[in-house]
Amino acid sequence: MSKPGITIKGIEELLGLEESGEEREFSRLSGYEEADASSIVFAEDQTALAKALASSAGLIFAPIGAPIGAPIGVVHEEDARVLQVKYPKHAFALCGRWMDGFEPVVIHPSAVIDAGASVGCGTSVGAGTVIEGGAIVGEGCTIASNVTIYGSVVIGDRVLVQSGAVLGAMGFGYVRGEDGSYVRFPQQGRLVIEDEVEIGANTTIDRGALGETRIGRGTKIDNQVHIGHNCRIGKNVVMAAQVGISGSCVVEDGAVLAGQVGLGDHVHIGPGVILGGAAGVFPGKHLEGPGQMFMGVPAEPVKEYLKTMARVRRLK
Amino acid sequence: MSKPGITIKGIEELLGLEESGEEREFSRLSGYEEADASSIVFAEDQTALAKALASSAGLIFAPIGAPIGAPIGVVHEEDARVLQVKYPKHAFALCGRWMDGFEPVVIHPSAVIDAGASVGCGTSVGAGTVIEGGAIVGEGCTIASNVTIYGSVVIGDRVLVQSGAVLGAMGFGYVRGEDGSYVRFPQQGRLVIEDEVEIGANTTIDRGALGETRIGRGTKIDNQVHIGHNCRIGKNVVMAAQVGISGSCVVEDGAVLAGQVGLGDHVHIGPGVILGGAAGVFPGKHLEGPGQMFMGVPAEPVKEYLKTMARVRRLK
Amino acid sequence: MSKPGITIKGIEELLGLEESGEEREFSRLSGYEEADASSIVFAEDQTALAKALASSAGLIFAPIGAPIGAPIGVVHEEDARVLQVKYPKHAFALCGRWMDGFEPVVIHPSAVIDAGASVGCGTSVGAGTVIEGGAIVGEGCTIASNVTIYGSVVIGDRVLVQSGAVLGAMGFGYVRGEDGSYVRFPQQGRLVIEDEVEIGANTTIDRGALGETRIGRGTKIDNQVHIGHNCRIGKNVVMAAQVGISGSCVVEDGAVLAGQVGLGDHVHIGPGVILGGAAGVFPGKHLEGPGQMFMGVPAEPVKEYLKTMARVRRLK
Repeated sequence: MSKPGITIKGIEELLGLEESGEEREFSRLSGYEEADASSIVFAEDQTALAKALASSAGLIFAPIGAPIGAPIGVVHEEDARVLQVKYPKHAFALCGRWMDGFEPVVIHPSAVIDAGASVGCGTSVGAGTVIEGGAIVGEGCTIASNVTIYGSVVIGDRVLVQSGAVLGAMGFGYVRGEDGSYVRFPQQGRLVIEDEVEIGANTTIDRGALGETRIGRGTKIDNQVHIGHNCRIGKNVVMAAQVGISGSCVVEDGAVLAGQVGLGDHVHIGPGVILGGAAGVFPGKHLEGPGQMFMGVPAEPVKEYLKTMARVRRLK
Repeated sequence: MSKPGITIKGIEELLGLEESGEEREFSRLSGYEEADASSIVFAEDQTALAKALASSAGLIFAPIGAPIGAPIGVVHEEDARVLQVKYPKHAFALCGRWMDGFEPVVIHPSAVIDAGASVGCGTSVGAGTVIEGGAIVGEGCTIASNVTIYGSVVIGDRVLVQSGAVLGAMGFGYVRGEDGSYVRFPQQGRLVIEDEVEIGANTTIDRGALGETRIGRGTKIDNQVHIGHNCRIGKNVVMAAQVGISGSCVVEDGAVLAGQVGLGDHVHIGPGVILGGAAGVFPGKHLEGPGQMFMGVPAEPVKEYLKTMARVRRLK
Repeated sequence: MSKPGITIKGIEELLGLEESGEEREFSRLSGYEEADASSIVFAEDQTALAKALASSAGLIFAPIGAPIGAPIGVVHEEDARVLQVKYPKHAFALCGRWMDGFEPVVIHPSAVIDAGASVGCGTSVGAGTVIEGGAIVGEGCTIASNVTIYGSVVIGDRVLVQSGAVLGAMGFGYVRGEDGSYVRFPQQGRLVIEDEVEIGANTTIDRGALGETRIGRGTKIDNQVHIGHNCRIGKNVVMAAQVGISGSCVVEDGAVLAGQVGLGDHVHIGPGVILGGAAGVFPGKHLEGPGQMFMGVPAEPVKEYLKTMARVRRLK
């Protein structure tokens, strides 16, 4: 963790602020309790700001319009530690990402990277991770320990894969014979993971059967998520832990799936749709409406869902 | 992927058709878009057949009675590429299985196979996979990378285990003491996996406590399924992703469990029963009826379930 | 499995019984079918006791007041194999724990323990397991094969971690930017696992974002459980398979969560609360009541839940 600190000048560049000429430097991102003069903290409202000001933090990101503090470079009469920014939490996260850029790049000697696999510059590969022949991993990725990447996988740049994830395994497609036994349908397609996707621990994403499975740019996937074969997941989609997506689903850009959501096969989730925790969508259904939240099993618009709940409980 | 091609003669043998004496050979199984003269494709209905005929595929499996095409060996006046078979998709899958038979058998040098473990002929073991002393793995199996097989496990022939699966871990059985603390019940039994079972990525199947856990011949299990200790799963059962089966359940032959289904402990699912996605069965319950579908939590016959749903939504 | 046997004297010490001077020794814990003269079995009621007496077991733990048998050391006129104890199953489990104490301590040569990691005396580490620099693992632990322990993790003594578990991965916290893309919130906290916790196969527990995630002493966690960042789980909590706990939840001492339970973020589960299988709790909710069982989604007290179910089915 001997990352370099970030200077006020660096923060200004990161956030697109004017240069103030200030030269202070901060080496840590902290909660209020652990903060010291080397720490940056953030506050999103007045209550938080009061706590931040009471802490020993060296720099506080506060929302514009906060009664205390002033734009960077202007020595504020009350507290020069406060830097007003449009989105304090976002600014804090951007500093974190900047610092992460200094993580050393290491391919652990115990990683197994087959001769026929390709791993881009600046990509780290953890201990015990297996990258099979045919797989392509882009630049600046972090592949943690004990990950498995089958040969059918193409990964873009700046992708994070946490431990235990299995990418590109065979999908679950079988054809039943007259005697009741099952023969596996060919599972020979690809899995394409676009730039800046992040994938949680023990998540599994299967490759396409004949075609491809695709995870769009910037999509974030939590732990223990399952995505079946031939799914097409859009850009900047969010899936919380234990979501299960059956084969051949489409989830469009900006959709949000809370924990334990389940989609039957061939489900289509429109752009920006929000699915509440443990919501379930039956096979073949299509849900639409940017910002529209759906809940329950089968999932219905939240207004309907709450009405249904209320009705059921009013029953005598 | 330098597998040999399959000849018309080979296909005839595989499907039990009469020999036509044709000598064409096909090296790929394809979707319509990627198909070329070396490809086999399949069609299950007229719409699909039209697409298949418009593709460059070299051979098309079509259903008997399809208006275009003729039995193999008979040069059809319209399109000699069409081979009418009883079950086109099944025929296509059988060709895939035939081709898979030529995958090279490799025990990766990084696999850890304890001295006391036994691995049969023709079985591949992937990188980073651990097979502990006492375990027995049969012939012709494919054990992918980063799998863990505890010493308590006996695996039959032609079994597929995908990456990250954990077989034979200790079950979840505890005895509570007077002080509120828990002592683990002995978990010293076995896990027996019969021939031709297929197990998905990151699935976990626990060994028996004192007795055994058993997965019957030909059963297919998707990713992230959990099967607790002392379960007895029958033959040709299908379990989709994220199914969770508590300890001491019985699931009989030919049952189908859709994604995220949950069974409490000591549940008994009769032969051929179908459980819809995310259905839940309370501990100790017994569901019966071949081909009968159950849905909801607690699971009820689909007819009842749909009535209940309709009633609830009709409420004012 | 060449563990030493346990003597009557050893059992008396373990259970706090008076010394009888008996010298018999037993090397196995068995079910009735497999029992022989070297076996201990247990019975909790009359039916079980009849079966136990019909078996070849050398020693039978039976409940006090059982009509057959006598306190240890008193040769019973009917069957000297019976040892009456307050909690026969608990006694049986304690013998199992005693025997487990003789498992050999092995750090497998393929385990990757970074130079900066610390592993206590008497701790076993399985094949392919990765313990990253910074991690601290206590004494007398069993870390199975293919486990991943990130550098942010502190583990107490006598902890069991089964295969495929991932401890201390980055939590799922993101901040959305104006362009719809997400930046990861810093995930730099710790995961603390107290003494005697047991963690199932393929379970994932994330480290804190800025603070810590904590699992209290004696808590038992089944397979494929997910616990998000910044959760605080109390002592002697039980979580069955596939439970999913979102970030910043509190689960207090002695709570019991059945399989597939889901908690939204910032949920608070009071001490001793019981959540039935697949119950779901909405974000921010607080459930209280030692011994009180909650069921359904959203979870309600079991009495209410059963009423609701009955009402819905009574609808015409």
